[in-house]
Amino acid sequence: MTQMRYEVRLAGAGGQGLVLAGIVLAEAALMEGHLVIHSQNYGPEARGGNSVSEVIISDHDIDYPRALGLDLLVALNQRSCSDNLPDMKPDGLAIVDSTPVKKVLWGKVLRVPLQREADHTFDDPRVVSMLALGVLTPFCPLVSEKALTKAISDRMPQASLEHNLKAYQAGVASGRQLQGDAHFHELEDAIEV
Amino acid sequence: MTQMRYEVRLAGAGGQGLVLAGIVLAEAALMEGHLVIHSQNYGPEARGGNSVSEVIISDHDIDYPRALGLDLLVALNQRSCSDNLPDMKPDGLAIVDSTPVKKVLWGKVLRVPLQREADHTFDDPRVVSMLALGVLTPFCPLVSEKALTKAISDRMPQASLEHNLKAYQAGVASGRQLQGDAHFHELEDAIEV
Repeated sequence: MTQMRYEVRLAGAGGQGLVLAGIVLAEAALMEGHLVIHSQNYGPEARGGNSVSEVIISDHDIDYPRALGLDLLVALNQRSCSDNLPDMKPDGLAIVDSTPVKKVLWGKVLRVPLQREADHTFDDPRVVSMLALGVLTPFCPLVSEKALTKAISDRMPQASLEHNLKAYQAGVASGRQLQGDAHFHELEDAIEV
Repeated sequence: MTQMRYEVRLAGAGGQGLVLAGIVLAEAALMEGHLVIHSQNYGPEARGGNSVSEVIISDHDIDYPRALGLDLLVALNQRSCSDNLPDMKPDGLAIVDSTPVKKVLWGKVLRVPLQREADHTFDDPRVVSMLALGVLTPFCPLVSEKALTKAISDRMPQASLEHNLKAYQAGVASGRQLQGDAHFHELEDAIEV
């Protein structure tokens, strides 16, 4: 019997909204009927300005509550990327912000200009985490766009909700485009993932 | 060498604001210079309507990221109380909402009408978690009122911030009063804590 367990880590600087993004992802997975643990680690790295938000989704009781092998990593800066790649599953997917993250020693990578999109298209650096949640949606098999939209609506302050939902939807559109992008699949083939 | 580790669990119904209260407590502890892990467990209990938010505060690397023995439990309903008392440290303190929680098989207990205060004094059931954070403040040695006030201000939506801070301050005042309450100490003496 296969025990389904899916691990996501969102890593970036403090203030990029990853704490709430992790909670939104966890609450969406709960709506889909899964068991979930969300952990927010405020370790030495957090004190140095970085934040790690981790969501473990399972259909069975979660015996060990921290990541054993990441299926999906979102890294919003170079250090967050370098520090967390060692925790990936062999076929895990890394989604990185292409402006600050130049060096990714990993095969299965999506490069998306997340912060640039937040700053320029939305004129609001804080929506970067909503964009990231959108981009990961098509790649995360256990959480639907519908559940994530509901979870964002439940959790975000009313005043900025429309703005955040627009950023989320723009992220979903980017994610879908990348999913269909031949280059991504060629890259996978090339490294025999 | 003593390794300081302090564990807090906030347990109650979904919608009582315990997810954010846990984050606020974790962020306040971080401001005080500690290492912190906040976990939000969306297990079978969460699906049944209850929520458990756990904060582990330490001055050393946190090897095991879930509670080993609770120093402080806040329980906002009977089931949250009964289910979580077995995880207490022998001298741990339970703070319970005195209206719904009638039966507490524990010695070191503070009974506070948290939800009634939220409903009647603040006319807003959702501030119950801010009241709870306030009540626990004088009993939690690692997090100051100042840091918690800052963490609430950073995390709560601007529109409801003043309201939430007032509830927090009312909670702190109740906690201080209870701390000085002879009855509480008598009870402790009686059970030889």
